Amino acid sequence: MPQRIVVIGGGAAGIGAAGAAKGTDPSAEVIVFTDYQDAAYSPCGIPYVHGGEIPDFERLFLGSKQQYVEQGIDIRYETHVSAYDTASKTVTVHGEPVPYDKLIVASGWNYGTPDVAGADLTGLYYMKNIREAMERDKTLDSVTSAVVLEAGPLGLEMVTALCHRGIETHLVDPSPWALSMATDPDIAKPVEDSWVEMGAKLHFNTKLEAILGDANGAVRAVQTSDGEIACQLVVVATHKEPNTELGAAAGLAVGSAGGFIVDESMASSVEDVWAAGDCIEVPHGVSNIPIQGLSGSHAYSQGKVAGVNAAGGTRTYQPVYVPWGLVAGKWMIGGVSFSETLATALGIPFVMGVAQGISRARYYPDVKPVKVKLLAQPGTLKLIGAQMVGGEGIKERADFLAMAVRTGITLRDLATMENVYSPPIGALNEPIALAAQNALSQLDT
Amino acid sequence: MPQRIVVIGGGAAGIGAAGAAKGTDPSAEVIVFTDYQDAAYSPCGIPYVHGGEIPDFERLFLGSKQQYVEQGIDIRYETHVSAYDTASKTVTVHGEPVPYDKLIVASGWNYGTPDVAGADLTGLYYMKNIREAMERDKTLDSVTSAVVLEAGPLGLEMVTALCHRGIETHLVDPSPWALSMATDPDIAKPVEDSWVEMGAKLHFNTKLEAILGDANGAVRAVQTSDGEIACQLVVVATHKEPNTELGAAAGLAVGSAGGFIVDESMASSVEDVWAAGDCIEVPHGVSNIPIQGLSGSHAYSQGKVAGVNAAGGTRTYQPVYVPWGLVAGKWMIGGVSFSETLATALGIPFVMGVAQGISRARYYPDVKPVKVKLLAQPGTLKLIGAQMVGGEGIKERADFLAMAVRTGITLRDLATMENVYSPPIGALNEPIALAAQNALSQLDT
Repeated sequence: MPQRIVVIGGGAAGIGAAGAAKGTDPSAEVIVFTDYQDAAYSPCGIPYVHGGEIPDFERLFLGSKQQYVEQGIDIRYETHVSAYDTASKTVTVHGEPVPYDKLIVASGWNYGTPDVAGADLTGLYYMKNIREAMERDKTLDSVTSAVVLEAGPLGLEMVTALCHRGIETHLVDPSPWALSMATDPDIAKPVEDSWVEMGAKLHFNTKLEAILGDANGAVRAVQTSDGEIACQLVVVATHKEPNTELGAAAGLAVGSAGGFIVDESMASSVEDVWAAGDCIEVPHGVSNIPIQGLSGSHAYSQGKVAGVNAAGGTRTYQPVYVPWGLVAGKWMIGGVSFSETLATALGIPFVMGVAQGISRARYYPDVKPVKVKLLAQPGTLKLIGAQMVGGEGIKERADFLAMAVRTGITLRDLATMENVYSPPIGALNEPIALAAQNALSQLDT
Repeated sequence: MPQRIVVIGGGAAGIGAAGAAKGTDPSAEVIVFTDYQDAAYSPCGIPYVHGGEIPDFERLFLGSKQQYVEQGIDIRYETHVSAYDTASKTVTVHGEPVPYDKLIVASGWNYGTPDVAGADLTGLYYMKNIREAMERDKTLDSVTSAVVLEAGPLGLEMVTALCHRGIETHLVDPSPWALSMATDPDIAKPVEDSWVEMGAKLHFNTKLEAILGDANGAVRAVQTSDGEIACQLVVVATHKEPNTELGAAAGLAVGSAGGFIVDESMASSVEDVWAAGDCIEVPHGVSNIPIQGLSGSHAYSQGKVAGVNAAGGTRTYQPVYVPWGLVAGKWMIGGVSFSETLATALGIPFVMGVAQGISRARYYPDVKPVKVKLLAQPGTLKLIGAQMVGGEGIKERADFLAMAVRTGITLRDLATMENVYSPPIGALNEPIALAAQNALSQLDT
């Protein structure tokens, strides 16, 4: 009799898990439960439809529902799992128990809800579901002023998108600079300057005190430590909190970062239960500290590992170094692992190099600056972190540097790296090499 | 008394050497002899001025002559070194001996001259000197048909440039596909297809038999094994041959690839003589076979190593893996180290993976294909070569993969690499990871 593998969640981790499980054991019955009308669309694309870069929401959908049917994956849309029981090995759907042989929990995340009065008003936009995004988008043309709460990755994308949309956009964040958990102020500065050029109003070091409504219960302003800001829309881009409520009730261990604890096979603390994506935490490769709230690419990879193992195969997941990158204002920013600020806060010793390079030959049209900042372990000079801001090639460099951190590549390796030199695509001197040389020049004197 | 360091050659290697020597020993007298009117311009930019991407030649110049004066580097323009003598430690200039304490030879390269009748006709363009390029450029508007000899890196750039310029362009090459010494036919195919779309006529497997002139000694056609091709211009983009004539006469050892033999400090076989750039050969990191004719970036780095050591410092140069990349037709192509064809020809065993990925989220405007082909050592699965063709990010990936080859990164590392996922700059799945996974999927079955 074929095994039944139940997946809770239809996001990147859940769909990755379902596909990998079916691929590993084609005879398995694979059922995915999702609260939503859709599975496998790209929520990451939503800010770019709002901003006008992507012309419509339809193209965010990854596959047709028929495609999953053909793959033999049984997706139950708009079907809420209200509980699961790991002793009887059942999930509760519409009040009825559904038995499983193997369970994969990919229950995702929720926004941290602002702990202020007015957090339930109409006009608060918790961006997540594409159907809601499609409705919201229709109203954006009548919005003249918007507030984005917090300068995390989604906040950066939404400030940029709303500026593109021609909306007066206010960014409210209690930190002193943008994306402060991952960057240093010198890296964030060009982005902030470009937002100002685009008309955004930046309120850093600013605490949200209340969200103010009108007589109809719609948002009319936010009250902050920097004063009242009139707006018709509040984008709540707060921290992603792992959605672990049902799992914790079912006995799955939750760790220090708030996510389910899993081993390298993505197995939870309970037998026959795996977990993947934004509901879990995984060790950071440099610090061994558990972290959560990574990218859709991480969720998808974790889902595949969970799916393979749940179906009886063997695959392991590596500690993460978290290359990241995004477009913010008129720049790309990105990096991997620790910033100077974070390493300092954690008491991690480091040596550092910084350089301002360029993306193409200095005389080639559309050449862009590329600033690189590298952190390395004193003594061994192994890379432990990087940050970049520039006009091109940030994603590829972040991927490279994440592998460099993982495999123990040193500043001496990077200082002597070879690089492509071709006027339209690469400069004589690679900015990464220049940053490593800068670090060495400080050490060797 | 300050030491006198003489540099022969004002290209990337010579200028890099002079600057590094002066930086290492500011008291040294540093003299650079160059045959040309200029030093430190970017010859690599010339095809793009011809093609119209770069609006003028002036911006190819790197620094003003005054800048070198201020750095304390004494550049003697249009000053030919006719011989040097390593016993008396002199170079001969205008028939007179000029003594040196340390000599750095950066004498560059010459095009392989076509061994056919007519190789001396007017209309043969050996692209090298910017002054000649400026004159040639003025005549391009009256050229209706041009032939580019050989599909090496410069040939690829010039075919593309002349097509952009609206000239009927014929590529004549004895090999079966473009850049056959570095690529495989499946990688070159999209480039060749795009040239055809741009109007180019491709003559592969075609031998040049003669260059035919008119009554005035100007080119009127080339005679090939594929017939006669009428043209007013022939771009001679043949192999770069190391310029070693004077050095060989002076007793510098020349190696199997035709370049001066140097050690890791760029010291030649003769005491107090260093050499760098296109006149030398260096070991390939994977095969240990000496190779020559690398990029301006390599020449500059080698020059710096030679300059530091000649001036009394200590710096070493690493074996090379040669990341390369360029724009050809409507594509970027690039790679590192061995192609499937070359590895097969050399009898180097390998396993291989290929994948077709994308450069951004599949729904994001201007998303481009990125094809990646990886070769690895059987057993260890250490990367030994890569090739790519795509629309974005080829240079940065080639740099990454060159470091991967150098540091022994494996297909298993690459298959599990983390990658930035952000719709405008990176896809859910990195093409490099997909290619590594493809290789592993073939091994594991």
